[in-house]
Amino acid sequence: MSHATFNRSTDGLPTAVDPAHLAATLAEQRPEDVVDLLNQNKPGFAAAVLLASPDPKAVAVFDQPELRNGSAIASILPADRAARLLNQVSADRLADIFREMRVSDRNHLPALVSSETRSTLERLLRYPDDCAGSIMTTEFVAVPADWTVEQVLAHVREVEHTRETVYAIYVLDADGTLLRALSLRRLIAADPKGDLLAVAPNLTPLAVAPDAPLEEAVRLISKYNLLALPVVDAKQHPIGIITVDDAVDVLVAQQDAQVQHFGGMEPLDTPYLRIGFFELIRKRAGWLSLLFLAEMLTASAMQTYQDELERAIVLSLFIPLIMSSGGNSGSQATSLVIRALAVRDMHLQDWWRVILRELPAGILLGAVLGALGATRIAVWQGLAVFDYGPHWKLIALTVVLALVGIVTFGSIVGSMLPFVLKRLGFDPATASAPFVATLVDVSGIVIYFTAASLVLRGTLL
Amino acid sequence: MSHATFNRSTDGLPTAVDPAHLAATLAEQRPEDVVDLLNQNKPGFAAAVLLASPDPKAVAVFDQPELRNGSAIASILPADRAARLLNQVSADRLADIFREMRVSDRNHLPALVSSETRSTLERLLRYPDDCAGSIMTTEFVAVPADWTVEQVLAHVREVEHTRETVYAIYVLDADGTLLRALSLRRLIAADPKGDLLAVAPNLTPLAVAPDAPLEEAVRLISKYNLLALPVVDAKQHPIGIITVDDAVDVLVAQQDAQVQHFGGMEPLDTPYLRIGFFELIRKRAGWLSLLFLAEMLTASAMQTYQDELERAIVLSLFIPLIMSSGGNSGSQATSLVIRALAVRDMHLQDWWRVILRELPAGILLGAVLGALGATRIAVWQGLAVFDYGPHWKLIALTVVLALVGIVTFGSIVGSMLPFVLKRLGFDPATASAPFVATLVDVSGIVIYFTAASLVLRGTLL
Repeated sequence: MSHATFNRSTDGLPTAVDPAHLAATLAEQRPEDVVDLLNQNKPGFAAAVLLASPDPKAVAVFDQPELRNGSAIASILPADRAARLLNQVSADRLADIFREMRVSDRNHLPALVSSETRSTLERLLRYPDDCAGSIMTTEFVAVPADWTVEQVLAHVREVEHTRETVYAIYVLDADGTLLRALSLRRLIAADPKGDLLAVAPNLTPLAVAPDAPLEEAVRLISKYNLLALPVVDAKQHPIGIITVDDAVDVLVAQQDAQVQHFGGMEPLDTPYLRIGFFELIRKRAGWLSLLFLAEMLTASAMQTYQDELERAIVLSLFIPLIMSSGGNSGSQATSLVIRALAVRDMHLQDWWRVILRELPAGILLGAVLGALGATRIAVWQGLAVFDYGPHWKLIALTVVLALVGIVTFGSIVGSMLPFVLKRLGFDPATASAPFVATLVDVSGIVIYFTAASLVLRGTLL
Repeated sequence: MSHATFNRSTDGLPTAVDPAHLAATLAEQRPEDVVDLLNQNKPGFAAAVLLASPDPKAVAVFDQPELRNGSAIASILPADRAARLLNQVSADRLADIFREMRVSDRNHLPALVSSETRSTLERLLRYPDDCAGSIMTTEFVAVPADWTVEQVLAHVREVEHTRETVYAIYVLDADGTLLRALSLRRLIAADPKGDLLAVAPNLTPLAVAPDAPLEEAVRLISKYNLLALPVVDAKQHPIGIITVDDAVDVLVAQQDAQVQHFGGMEPLDTPYLRIGFFELIRKRAGWLSLLFLAEMLTASAMQTYQDELERAIVLSLFIPLIMSSGGNSGSQATSLVIRALAVRDMHLQDWWRVILRELPAGILLGAVLGALGATRIAVWQGLAVFDYGPHWKLIALTVVLALVGIVTFGSIVGSMLPFVLKRLGFDPATASAPFVATLVDVSGIVIYFTAASLVLRGTLL
């Protein structure tokens, strides 16, 4: 339960700790905890600690996706040690380390790893970041269909230490085509002399293509509670697996990205306190400026209604209140639909069902807010807190009508935005609360002044 | 790869399908896919299908957390069949089914399950929804420390079909205290005659208390790539385990809840298209009304500046533009901090570091937007698209100053909101984009008019 914590050095440098001494202390620590410590220090220090650690420990540390600066650390280590360690690191993790490498180092290190590792690496590096192939590993257990249970168990024992998982075993026919998937638990509970195919469930295994979207692989692992999902080529030959712990990492990263997207910015891929200041600005300024430019239309819309504003300045008082309600209801609707599309509770063709719900929902929610707004105006007027003038009842009516219109419009626009983005081939999760608010704001002004001109014509306007 | 799909009946009733016939068709389907189909139908139909299915299939279906109306289906089945099936369902899932049961049915069904199941169930039902105990299961493998590898393997073979997982094996001392955790893969690769303790890694196993927060259990499973995490009582005796597939389910549910929170509403716990209309309204109206009431302060703030507005109506044109920028920058900062706190990249005591970043970030981002805004005013004036009057340069300056002030203020407020919520004991994820925008809007008006009075005193004001 308890795992030792170390002095956190806030400046990123250890406070006079001898790396060799530290390596000895770390011998009994979990690799994940060693990574936590190394991440708080410069690559040079991390390399010194790993240099003083035995191979299995150093490999286990390199194997952690959470290790930062893996490529820098590898570059600092003596070339032969780096090669020996990297040859033992799992293929998917090795590909990650190469991806973060500078091009000059990339040319240098492959010479060090074995030719077999190199060709695997070259294949893995070909897949873009967002597809299943990019997180698969090539170390899985595949056996011919004519083996007995006993033979497979003997094989598992032999290759256990070089495989990412041995809990999922893939049965291939003579061509190397994936025939069945089998769990180790089922295998060890079976009669050792028995036929492999008699033990394996009679189902075509679930699998994905290497260029399938990452989220599809994660969805299958999550839905079918898989410990591993095979990745197959066009001939249905398994070329790798995606393990459940990789799926968990993707889910956590997606959660970050989704909230940051929804917050109206490019997701950071570095922790907030570690990202460079100008990188942080860059990730935020883009969307912020874009939204600002779009929001400039509100100034144009307001200019159109300048005459009305001059005649009835009282109308300007409710502009922020009314506009924000449209943005808020839109933001709610967007968040609902983004998630429903992501978990496949809803599909592209369900858009009209959403409209059929959002239309009455928007009208009702707008009426609720309208009642609150009208009450406020009546109370302020009644208690003489503020004088909205002789036509205050008409102003209240304008506010109610505008709220019903804007909240309904916000709900419809907010709920349709993810559908439109998906239809156009974008990720629906790029829809954000500020994005929706901006879309709704301009029309909010138009709706408000339209309501005003209908209600107040002949009196204030 | 391909798995058969069925006609979706949109009204929730099957289109003249015979349940027994369907059960035969489903025999070769994965339980997850059977659940998808049953979920589209009424409990009575689902019960008829399960009644016609063999026990192992029906149990596998009940074991799926995605099955809706599990308790209703169980209540419709003949009592003896229901009892036989429920006795074989895993303990954590059985507890879920009981949680969703009406009180009258709750009293009825426990009589059917075995006394052993009943006492497990009573223990599990004691834990509230958001703690580790609520998703643990009691079917795990625990063995005495003095067994040999061979003995443990024989035990695993024997109990395999009644355990949620056999891949994590827990080694207990004579008192029943958790001593070591061991993976099955390590066990089968070891010398059968060997000593268990020589094979198990020399580490105190990670574990949680049953009342630990759910998210802590998920964090440990995710960080340490565990297939299962033991839950221990005060004496360190294991009382259950949480498996990685439960952690995955929690992560997916959290993702929904977090996005919906951030969208400014109470998370739905039913899919959007299935939730009742008035339930949907209830989940949205609460926050929407609360935000509306808070946003009413903008009307009060505007009332304060009515004189200024009357003298310089041109100022009103930029109100939506400037206010939305504060909300947008605040929304970005909030989304960053919510996630950093959730994944523990940041802790409560790091708030001042965040301020030290957000202050310069806000000033710089505000200056970027200010430059865009001033350019717009100059271009519109220069091209005579709109006449901002003889003091247009001062108006542009007002806009720049206000944007720097509001974006900085928005960034600070947005980034501090999750800290404040956490400090007050709330979930930082209840901070939402509309919440931040509302907080920032009132102060935005004050900042804007303050900038205006500084710049325009003696000219327009």
